Amino acid sequence: MRIVQKFGGTSVGSLERIRATADLVEAELARGNQIAVVVSAMSGETNRLIGMATEMDATPCEREIDALVATGEQVSAALLAIELQHRGIRAYSYNGAQAGVTTSGDYKRARIKSISCAHLQNHLQAGEVPVVTGFQGVDEQGNITTLGRGGSDTSAVALAVAVEADVCDIYTDVDGIYTTDPRIVSKARKMEQISYEEMLEMASLGAKVLQTRSVEMAMRYNMPIHLRSSFENITGTMVVKEDDTMERAAISGVAYNRDEAKITILGIPDHPGIAANVFGPVAEAGINVDVIVQNVSAQGFTDITFTVPRSDYQATMKLMRDLCTSLHGRDVQGDDGVAKVSVIGVGMRSHAGVAKTMFDALAAEGVNIQMITTSEIKITVVIEEKYVELAVRSLHTAFALDATPDER
Amino acid sequence: MRIVQKFGGTSVGSLERIRATADLVEAELARGNQIAVVVSAMSGETNRLIGMATEMDATPCEREIDALVATGEQVSAALLAIELQHRGIRAYSYNGAQAGVTTSGDYKRARIKSISCAHLQNHLQAGEVPVVTGFQGVDEQGNITTLGRGGSDTSAVALAVAVEADVCDIYTDVDGIYTTDPRIVSKARKMEQISYEEMLEMASLGAKVLQTRSVEMAMRYNMPIHLRSSFENITGTMVVKEDDTMERAAISGVAYNRDEAKITILGIPDHPGIAANVFGPVAEAGINVDVIVQNVSAQGFTDITFTVPRSDYQATMKLMRDLCTSLHGRDVQGDDGVAKVSVIGVGMRSHAGVAKTMFDALAAEGVNIQMITTSEIKITVVIEEKYVELAVRSLHTAFALDATPDER
Repeated sequence: MRIVQKFGGTSVGSLERIRATADLVEAELARGNQIAVVVSAMSGETNRLIGMATEMDATPCEREIDALVATGEQVSAALLAIELQHRGIRAYSYNGAQAGVTTSGDYKRARIKSISCAHLQNHLQAGEVPVVTGFQGVDEQGNITTLGRGGSDTSAVALAVAVEADVCDIYTDVDGIYTTDPRIVSKARKMEQISYEEMLEMASLGAKVLQTRSVEMAMRYNMPIHLRSSFENITGTMVVKEDDTMERAAISGVAYNRDEAKITILGIPDHPGIAANVFGPVAEAGINVDVIVQNVSAQGFTDITFTVPRSDYQATMKLMRDLCTSLHGRDVQGDDGVAKVSVIGVGMRSHAGVAKTMFDALAAEGVNIQMITTSEIKITVVIEEKYVELAVRSLHTAFALDATPDER
Repeated sequence: MRIVQKFGGTSVGSLERIRATADLVEAELARGNQIAVVVSAMSGETNRLIGMATEMDATPCEREIDALVATGEQVSAALLAIELQHRGIRAYSYNGAQAGVTTSGDYKRARIKSISCAHLQNHLQAGEVPVVTGFQGVDEQGNITTLGRGGSDTSAVALAVAVEADVCDIYTDVDGIYTTDPRIVSKARKMEQISYEEMLEMASLGAKVLQTRSVEMAMRYNMPIHLRSSFENITGTMVVKEDDTMERAAISGVAYNRDEAKITILGIPDHPGIAANVFGPVAEAGINVDVIVQNVSAQGFTDITFTVPRSDYQATMKLMRDLCTSLHGRDVQGDDGVAKVSVIGVGMRSHAGVAKTMFDALAAEGVNIQMITTSEIKITVVIEEKYVELAVRSLHTAFALDATPDER
């Protein structure tokens, strides 16, 4: 097999951790696999570099920030290559420019356009290990760019696609994706497989194990991702294309996000364009609106309710109060003590009654549903935050996700 | 004027020092000059990086060491660019690859082959400041290379040649070249000018203010170097081509090196190839032999005396004892308490009697000369180390180098 292995900042965070990471590379080579490696900067290094820059200038030039922080991965790539060579493995570090990673010219948030990697393929065919810096590339003028925080996952998937790897192994500090948060539900099970679509829905709910862009790219090119632990040599969760051989429970997992706030603007005139009036200023302020519900209009007036991240609650409330005044609305009400709970599963498409099961389970526990929103493979409810654990546990049981004693 | 300014590790060693360095760039721009900057790594950074590498592997792969330490200059270049931009100066960092510095493929000791710098020239013409990493480049395959310690001076001169600068300003922790060491001779004078040839002879004696390769390159391309202080805004010493307008004292300066040892191998057969027999093993051991004197042969036997750095004394003595045994020589004698003192000056070519003045001055002080060697612009004597200060002071006076009270 040809494998791209990706190691994050904690996996190269110290010389001791680099040695443990080299063990993982060596083990895959010993199994006869061809290995390319993608690394992040040593944990803490990127923040150290940015700290120096912002001490010089509170808003330092983005071109220079990218040139500065790109050194972080170059250091960890060289150190890992040195450790691999120390073990007799022919390993060679490559920074973004050397690896042929061409990106857009958007500093701090560049997008990979292409990877010219014939030289890396030659290494792989020769049983050698290219160690490539994640997170970075160069634009068409040769300026150093970075992909934004977490971009190393995307680098790894893009490299796996470019070298036609069989799988992209992403090593993290968790050992896979669980049916729900094991800290809340002791019977949570590690999933063997999850579809790209489900993974994206999980990620959007704050289960930030994989960077969303990396999953989107893997889905586009049908590159399997093996999400696995850098601490234990055990199988993790495969993120793959949905296909017929997959287990088809109605629901694969239950996700939640506590950090939500809900805002309602009451009694505003219901005319075309009113939603743009409400959400225009919020978008301009860079605030992400998530769930939106608009009541049926009564006598030409309507109420709009939506959620925002809790950290944006105060700013959004102020925008809405101003708007309410200018639109002669009736009132603005807010609640920064709400949470979202979702059930997710590609099986939902073919299984009727998921919504009914969900609402019944919550009703049985006395959990009041404040808002509901649905997508093709997800149903989300907004509830009072204090009910989160109760709701997650009851849904996990209701959808038969609880592990049997054997599975634990 | 178009100026390349080079700043060493201490000049970018802290954020405070980077600000002081930015002052020096800003001052030259304010005078209407076009400025390109070459920087070293922050002081201590290169050693920190090598320390991590050698902790992984006592003899780490040279390719990876170069990739690793090259990050040091990239960090300081980006930070200086950020500080310059903070002041409203359009500044852009470039690493070796981006600056177009192509080198040989000899890791850790690469030589610059060419610099493709049309883009840097465009910056200069637009009044913008390219900040280029010293010490590094890429070979023709795109591998990162470094020029070896001190190579940043060479980078600066090479860049000055490439962008057709009028002068290469090298900022250091001294304010120029002195007629001799001011710690020994209080009347030492700072030279306004020194020729490339004289500078090279000074450097070979341990006056390591400028890296030898940088002076050789400046001489080859006739690029004036202005060696000056990074702490005081005063004129330093210009290192230039020797020409008729230069002050033509017989002697420009007196240099010395204490760290010498002398070894004599006695009574070995005098036949063609005997010098190769003696110095072959020394060269193989990587030991630099400096002054060599061979006595006139008597009855088919000869004595050979030479100096080596004091740190190589024990190793060299062992090599010579082994050799003496195998050649059936009479004896090996050594002395690790000697020093070299030299007078240097292009004027020596046209002034007779320099040797006589030198030997008279030393004799008057009772300093015994153990060995003598000469080049076109230098006379060197080996003496007992305890006489170094006395010899340097008497020669400084004998060649009329002492400053008058006005000059101090």
